Amino acid sequence: MDTVRLTLDEVRDLARRVLTRQGLSPAHVEAVAETLVAGERDEAAAHGIYRLLVCDHTIRAGKVVLDAEPVLQDTAPGVVKVDAQGGYHQLAFRLGLPALVDKARKSGIAAMAINHCVHFSALWPEVEAVAAHGLVALACTPSHAWVAPAGGTKPVFGTNPIAFGWPRPGREPFVFDFATSATARGEIELHRRAGKPIPEGWGVDAEGRPTTDAETALAGAMLTFGGHKGSALSLMVELIAGPLIGDMTSAESIAHDAGAKASPYGGELILALDPAGFLGVAAAEHLARAEAVFDAITAQGARLPSERRYEARKRTVRDGVTVPRKLYDDLQGLLAG
Amino acid sequence: MDTVRLTLDEVRDLARRVLTRQGLSPAHVEAVAETLVAGERDEAAAHGIYRLLVCDHTIRAGKVVLDAEPVLQDTAPGVVKVDAQGGYHQLAFRLGLPALVDKARKSGIAAMAINHCVHFSALWPEVEAVAAHGLVALACTPSHAWVAPAGGTKPVFGTNPIAFGWPRPGREPFVFDFATSATARGEIELHRRAGKPIPEGWGVDAEGRPTTDAETALAGAMLTFGGHKGSALSLMVELIAGPLIGDMTSAESIAHDAGAKASPYGGELILALDPAGFLGVAAAEHLARAEAVFDAITAQGARLPSERRYEARKRTVRDGVTVPRKLYDDLQGLLAG
Repeated sequence: MDTVRLTLDEVRDLARRVLTRQGLSPAHVEAVAETLVAGERDEAAAHGIYRLLVCDHTIRAGKVVLDAEPVLQDTAPGVVKVDAQGGYHQLAFRLGLPALVDKARKSGIAAMAINHCVHFSALWPEVEAVAAHGLVALACTPSHAWVAPAGGTKPVFGTNPIAFGWPRPGREPFVFDFATSATARGEIELHRRAGKPIPEGWGVDAEGRPTTDAETALAGAMLTFGGHKGSALSLMVELIAGPLIGDMTSAESIAHDAGAKASPYGGELILALDPAGFLGVAAAEHLARAEAVFDAITAQGARLPSERRYEARKRTVRDGVTVPRKLYDDLQGLLAG
Repeated sequence: MDTVRLTLDEVRDLARRVLTRQGLSPAHVEAVAETLVAGERDEAAAHGIYRLLVCDHTIRAGKVVLDAEPVLQDTAPGVVKVDAQGGYHQLAFRLGLPALVDKARKSGIAAMAINHCVHFSALWPEVEAVAAHGLVALACTPSHAWVAPAGGTKPVFGTNPIAFGWPRPGREPFVFDFATSATARGEIELHRRAGKPIPEGWGVDAEGRPTTDAETALAGAMLTFGGHKGSALSLMVELIAGPLIGDMTSAESIAHDAGAKASPYGGELILALDPAGFLGVAAAEHLARAEAVFDAITAQGARLPSERRYEARKRTVRDGVTVPRKLYDDLQGLLAG
């Protein structure tokens, strides 16, 4: 494949120029660009500058308030709410993070609810940011209703990711971030474009029958991972990052979308737990004990989630990244267009 | 099968007499018996009075402090810790619940850590108890290291259940409670006793190769549900209900057990979130909106987790329960023995 080699600074510059051209205010340009750089840096290409094309579509559909100024609300000693005012969620997260950290340190546990945001990015940059403060983080968000509940036939849930971060002394945090759907919607779309069948368990047709045809699954419903257990978790995400924080469910988000195929609109919930709130001065000793759990996993040759991302990060910070030529040209087109 | 019919009062009386005979102090007898009654009432037989046999084994192994008096500790505005002092965990949960509810109402979110407890019961009675106060609940606990991580061959995790409760106005809460292992250990033991093969995906042999032989899997390792995603969740449970609260991991619990095959020993973490802390006076309106999510699931013929338990509850409260004659006789034997 024909590729272009870019340093991370060049990635950042390109992302900023495209986002500026798309009309985002400078603060949003800065915040959104950093998540795209993080995606490229960790070789998580689906969350890299490819997303600028997704932004382009969502912004052209009129679904983003380009200069939204998020507003912080203090509703309870353990809760911070950030109203994103219809803008991309990254800036809202940045605004709320110091308050979340402060409240978690004071109370031992705290929650941040981001409301009324357009959401397209992975959750791992956020749980990493919380863990960087020595806190344990749990984050989730609904999306668009594409996924049927276990035993059902019709979409109710979004891909509803859950992400977790655990601070590790002197090194990157332990982080996972996965969709509660069996696979990403984009993965099914890639199979459709390639004319390839999808594995059993990814989707059902409009009558709820198992299918291996990508197009049929996209017109029917996706399935959750892990059967009824994954379905239960997906429903939990709907509830705690939807009605609990006064924001949309995945069904409401896709109704709000009204066929525009824009990024999901709604809320996100992030919990932060402070080990010191549970353990006081003994926190360091117990965090060290957690390392034995990680060691027991890696010593038997199993990988921890995010290991690949951290390995990529070491490489790309030094060597830069490669981007498909076609994507690079498409982005240049956005700058010229 | 030969069975005995008992009212729930008779179940309670039988459980109390056996637990008293086993030497538990009156407060523990009361608290433990109620979880066994709840198991029978909801026709969750594995968590009913069958567990009196498990208690018998664990107590005879000297692994339970029979008259432990749990101690409440206030470590942070959003955290309550209860040291179970080596006793069964039910009494510790009861002691901590009012403080958890109070802190969640004041802060919007709070956590209860139960430490140094012997744990054998399901988590759904507890998330139900929290949800009965109008709070959202999330609970988890490690167990004994029986389960290999995804990509691994050797046990690191316990069956590590996760339970969730969501208050529903005017009716039973939405509740799920599942092991992050592919199946319960007891289920594999039932297959072994029946000489039946186990399905693929439940376990591996001592070299990490897939097996359908129950005995081989019990000597090797169980697997998590949902591949690497279930494995990530199981690891999260190890961390947040282990080192985060200063208590044992599943590996430490089984080492502490030292071959006694007693119930797991360690901690449990329960989070409580108050909708009013996020939504103020709008909480009722948004809880009502959550009902649309449940309706969208049940309207397509899919079941919600716990529906069967609630249906059983309606029946058994009126008609009583049936218990296998063999179990009934075994329990009578404990009373006579």
